Parts: sequence; C-alpha cells; structure tokens
Amino acid sequence: MYSVSVREHLMIAHSFQGEVFGPAQNLHGATYVVDVEFRRPELDENGIVVDIGRAGETLKAILGELNFKNLDDEAQFAGKNTTTEFLARHFFDRIATKIADGSLGPGADGLVSMKVTLNESHVAWAAYEGEL
Amino acid sequence: MYSVSVREHLMIAHSFQGEVFGPAQNLHGATYVVDVEFRRPELDENGIVVDIGRAGETLKAILGELNFKNLDDEAQFAGKNTTTEFLARHFFDRIATKIADGSLGPGADGLVSMKVTLNESHVAWAAYEGEL
Amino acid sequence: MYSVSVREHLMIAHSFQGEVFGPAQNLHGATYVVDVEFRRPELDENGIVVDIGRAGETLKAILGELNFKNLDDEAQFAGKNTTTEFLARHFFDRIATKIADGSLGPGADGLVSMKVTLNESHVAWAAYEGEL
Amino acid sequence: MYSVSVREHLMIAHSFQGEVFGPAQNLHGATYVVDVEFRRPELDENGIVVDIGRAGETLKAILGELNFKNLDDEAQFAGKNTTTEFLARHFFDRIATKIADGSLGPGADGLVSMKVTLNESHVAWAAYEGEL
Amino acid sequence: MYSVSVREHLMIAHSFQGEVFGPAQNLHGATYVVDVEFRRPELDENGIVVDIGRAGETLKAILGELNFKNLDDEAQFAGKNTTTEFLARHFFDRIATKIADGSLGPGADGLVSMKVTLNESHVAWAAYEGEL
Amino acid sequence: MYSVSVREHLMIAHSFQGEVFGPAQNLHGATYVVDVEFRRPELDENGIVVDIGRAGETLKAILGELNFKNLDDEAQFAGKNTTTEFLARHFFDRIATKIADGSLGPGADGLVSMKVTLNESHVAWAAYEGEL
Repeated sequence: MYSVSVREHLMIAHSFQGEVFGPAQNLHGATYVVDVEFRRPELDENGIVVDIGRAGETLKAILGELNFKNLDDEAQFAGKNTTTEFLARHFFDRIATKIADGSLGPGADGLVSMKVTLNESHVAWAAYEGEL
Repeated sequence: MYSVSVREHLMIAHSFQGEVFGPAQNLHGATYVVDVEFRRPELDENGIVVDIGRAGETLKAILGELNFKNLDDEAQFAGKNTTTEFLARHFFDRIATKIADGSLGPGADGLVSMKVTLNESHVAWAAYEGEL
Repeated sequence: MYSVSVREHLMIAHSFQGEVFGPAQNLHGATYVVDVEFRRPELDENGIVVDIGRAGETLKAILGELNFKNLDDEAQFAGKNTTTEFLARHFFDRIATKIADGSLGPGADGLVSMKVTLNESHVAWAAYEGEL
Repeated sequence: MYSVSVREHLMIAHSFQGEVFGPAQNLHGATYVVDVEFRRPELDENGIVVDIGRAGETLKAILGELNFKNLDDEAQFAGKNTTTEFLARHFFDRIATKIADGSLGPGADGLVSMKVTLNESHVAWAAYEGEL
Repeated sequence: MYSVSVREHLMIAHSFQGEVFGPAQNLHGATYVVDVEFRRPELDENGIVVDIGRAGETLKAILGELNFKNLDDEAQFAGKNTTTEFLARHFFDRIATKIADGSLGPGADGLVSMKVTLNESHVAWAAYEGEL
Repeated sequence: MYSVSVREHLMIAHSFQGEVFGPAQNLHGATYVVDVEFRRPELDENGIVVDIGRAGETLKAILGELNFKNLDDEAQFAGKNTTTEFLARHFFDRIATKIADGSLGPGADGLVSMKVTLNESHVAWAAYEGEL
C-alpha cells in the first residue's frame, strides 16, 4: 500500500461537558497540527498517490472552516464534545466529501483509505482512520 | 478506527547477552520516550477513546516501576535481553493488565487494540502492537 | 555558559484587539509547548545548573495558573494582547519571581539569565530572554 | 506484531514530467529522511526483530546507490517520475532483496512485512508498505 | 530580548566546486526547512514583535524566488558554492531588504536583529545571524 | 555570525551522588542526542563554516569514546557527577582539542565559538557554549 501525507494546523477555542474532563470543562483552546494520510494500492499514471498540491489546498480550506473559531458556537457540534478524536473524524468526513466531489482531481478516485491525525501537544495526539 | 496517544519517558541501564549486540553487551543505558496508542472503533458517550488523564497517569506509574533502574538486576527479566522491542511488549502487557483491572476507568472496556512505541534515539525506535 | 532546559505545555483560549491580527481577533485558542532555558557560567558543587526536578515542578505550577483558561477573563491581562511573545515574557517574569523566592532551591542563586520559548505550532514560535 | 525502525537520509536532484507537478517539472531536488520499519510476529532467540546494526548499514548502502545523484540520469528510472511514493517503493524492493540474500543475517528470515517512509519536508511525506 | 520565528521550506538542485565536498560535487539537491527569527527589545503597541502574517508571506515569497530551481543556473550565484550556510546568509539579506522597504509593515522598524536557520536533514543544519 | 550544526548520539549508564538527584542516585542510563554548533564570522574560500564530513566523523569518534559504557567506571570522571550539563562541557573540550590538533582540517582555524547540546529526552536538554 502506498501513502502520501500532508500537514497543516488550526487554532480553536472550546469547552467540554462531563466530569471526566476535569479542568478542560472550562473554556480553553488548542493548536491542532493535522496530518492527513491518503492511501492507494497502486500509483496512478503520473506515479503519484494524489495531487499533493490540491491535497494541501483542500486540507487548508477545510481547516479554515473552523480556524480561529470558538467551537462551542458551531451549531453543527451542538450537544457534542469536540474532543481531539471527535475532530479527527470530523475532518476525515469533510475531506472524504471533497474527494468524492472531485476537489482533489480525477486521480483521487483511486484512494481507498485515509487517516487523519490531530497533534494537540508534544505529549498527546488522536486519530481517525477508515475506508473511503 | 479511532485512537488516542500519550507520551512519557524513562531512563534505565542494562546490558545484552549475544554476539549480535557487539558493544551493547557492555553495561550501558537508554532514554526511552514511550508512546502508547489506544484504539477503539466508536467513541464513548463523552466523545472520547479513553480518559486521557488516567491513561497518562497509568503510563507514568508503569514506567515508574523501571525508571532509574538497572534492568540487569530485575528478577522478572532474568535470562532475557531487555531490548527495545522486548520492553515495548513488556509495557504493552503491563498496560493491558491495568485496562483489565479498571485503572483506566469503566470506559476503557471499549478499547480493542493498542500500540506501544519506544523511541530510543533520533534514528531508532521499536514497537509492539496487538489486540486487547 | 552552561544551560539546562525543560519543556511543559498549556492550553488556553483568547482573542486579540487590533486589525493586524485579522481572524485572530475572534475568540480562538492555542496549545503552547513551553521551553525554559536556565543559564549559569559555572556548575554548582553537584555538577548541575539547577535542580531539574524543582525546575520542572515550578514550570508546571506556573503554567497551571493559566492552563485551561480563557485569558480574556484574566484581570491581570486587561487591555493587553496575550500574544505568544507577550506570554513568553509573562512566564519569564513569573519564573524569575520563583527563583528569587527560593522555590528552585538555594543553588538557583547562581542563575544569570533565562530564555522562555512558546511553540504555538509546527511553523511558529516566540521567545523572551533576559538577565536575572 | 513487533517492529524495529531505523532512520537515514539521502539528497538527490530530479524533475517530473506531467502538468500535475507544476513548478516541480523543473530540475530541483530533495532531502529524503528515510524510515524503515521491519516487522515480525515473534522475537528471535536474542530477543530482537532484526540485527539493527546490519539493518542500518544495509539501509545506508542502499541509499548510497542514489545519494548525491541526479535521478534523471539513472537508466533504471527512465520514463518514470521519481516521486516520493515511487522512491519509497524502490527502496522497499531494494531492502527486500537484501533481506532475501542474507545481508541482514539469518535471523531476518522471520520478517513478515516492512514499511518505508520518505520524509521530504516538515509538511509532507510518503510511504510504501507490504508483505515480504 | 523578544523574538518571533516562522518556518517555511524550499526544494532545490545544485552542485559544489572543491574537493572538500566529495560526492556533493555531483549535481544533487536538498529540501531546506527554513526558520527565521525576528528580534526586538520591546513589543510594539499591539504587543507583537512583527506582523506574523506578513512575515510568513514575505518568507514564502523570498523562498519562492529559488524554489524548484537548479541553483547552478542562477547568475547571481556564479562562482559561488550555494552551501547551506551561504544560503542562510542569502535569505538573511533578502529578508533584510524586505524589512527595509516596508514589506513587513511599519512596525518592523523596531526589529534589531535576525537569525535564519536552514535545516537540511535530521542531522545537519546551518544558520546566519546578524544585526539589521 | 555563521554556524553549522551536526547531530549524533550515544547511550551510557551512570549514577549520581547527592540528595538533589533523588532516584537518579541509582544506576540508570540515558540516550544523549548530541548537537554541535560550529561558529565563525566569515565563510572560508569554499563557502563553508567547517568541513561537515570531518566534523561529523570527529563527533562520532569522540562520542565513541564513551558510547555503550558505564561512566561510573571511567577514571577521568572520578568524584564527578556526569550530569547532562557536565557532559556537554566534556564533549565541548574534547572537540576543541580536535579542532586545535587539525582533525577538522586547516579551515577549522577560523572557528571562534561552539555550542554543544545534549538532548536527554523529549522534555529536557542541556548545553555548554564558549569561545575557542
């Protein structure tokens, strides 16, 4: 299996509901350094997994939807804890939609799976991976 | 599949038996920066993979069992080479025991697999991963 | 000149006032991975720059004063932009106070300067350094 | 599953054919920091996945075949784009040949799979993984 | 002294003249991950060292002048070895010109010194620092 | 000022004398990832700070004097705590001797200062810097 990965970041505010979160129930924030791994079993005729230029731009655009925002104000996340692992899945789904609508180019048809990792500090990170 | 990872470290002395180890047959030592990845297919009702606070404390406690020790003096490792890959498995098993005894909280029941990586330098690391 | 450095992190929310900040005028947040470098010209009788255990605990305690908070609500920062460079100076001053009050042990008398670096992402960081 | 990983690097020039590459159609170059992960289900009698000394030397020798070269001049790559993902597969195959010919020692018989990752910058990397 | 640092990268081909370079006399290439540190003794009225948005755009534009190029074809470098340390100085001078012409905004007047670091691999980097 | 830096590592065992060290009074060990920064005000006629090949070999040879050893058995360190900061100075002095005896080539005459950093974990490091 081949893969290509790209990295971008975003900076958000949020708070969590639930005793398990301790002081993170307060309004606080995070920098998430986001890695997206695109996978396919064979390279296309150009010798690539994905158009890395379009992949990077798509990732930046998707992170831009939430960058510099307070996630507690986002209607789409009402009643949800926007944990690192939850957001990994959110970005996975958003990128999958972009692959499906052709934003990453026709060659992106060959992608079979993806992994999205959010690095929240030098000692903690979370990920979601799945089929496309 | 979702995952959450945490990082801690320990510093130990040890020596190896066997020609394949060359100068590492001498008593020497290592810093191991240890990453533990916890995995589950669905998030719990709080939107998390695992209570990251308890996960970090558990990891620190388990590494503390060997931290600042000479592993050549540990009866549990008699007749074994405490290589990086061997220790990855050792910590995997220790953490698995803690998950089973409830140390990571009741939500840790949902964990299905785990990966333990020991980074021994900027150019070498080893891991053990398996089902829970 | 000798130095010893330790690393910790905190996660906060805040917003900025001023056109130069663009979208960062919104309430957002950051993870700051904080490095503190302690410097002295000669080692003490133990062969150390500073008691690294106390240094780490002190840093953690100081970051804990703001960790998981919305800095916009802190009276001490009223009318100030809590930029990365501003916070580097804030933590520098807080640690200097702790050195002066003996929190890092009597050996910390020999420290002559310090540098505090806040890493806010994989592509940006800021620092403040000065004499003690 | 156990794994051991080693890191080395090489520095090459090359150019790509195809509109998708934009300015990378020009002759340019890259540093590739190469990680090779060797995997086996059980440790050998020494408690290791692979002789890490031989693994490192083998990797260095294989990267040395292309280090400080212009890949556009390599007959073996004629008509191919030497993208990061293509080169990951190239090094995978070269190392697999070395495992098969005994260069990593008799114990390397037990290896079942491998992953080769090429880090091309702080924001992009590619990999190839497969069975042995 | 305060500082703010930003990171970008470029990918180039080149060759060196002189026996000291060994195999690097061949046409080869490199990824340079470039860090620029801007320094000033006091923050401006916004609480910043420099407009980080403009700083990043300026750095990207300057690296773009050489990105995806063969430096052996650049008339400005004729008769020079474009070593990592030489390029650190080149970028230092280019950025200094941009500060002087107002590209980083009027607040950049207060900058007193700068350091440019080029990371060429996980085991080697070079820098140039100086007054402005 | 120009600088060039190279990185290597070593793995040792040791113990410390003194209550300030707590559990590190036990025999334990460390991986030190060692960075050496060579500095000079102007480049030589080849456009370099130092012959990076010789610099790397020299560093590797000097670290090899202690690599895979128990520092408690080294007569040269009798009565000393081989702390990270102490070892930074030790390696500084050893490299300075090699510069003086011509091991880094005649061009190394132009070096004016040096910094040696020992990274002992992802959260702690120490350094010694001085004139040559």
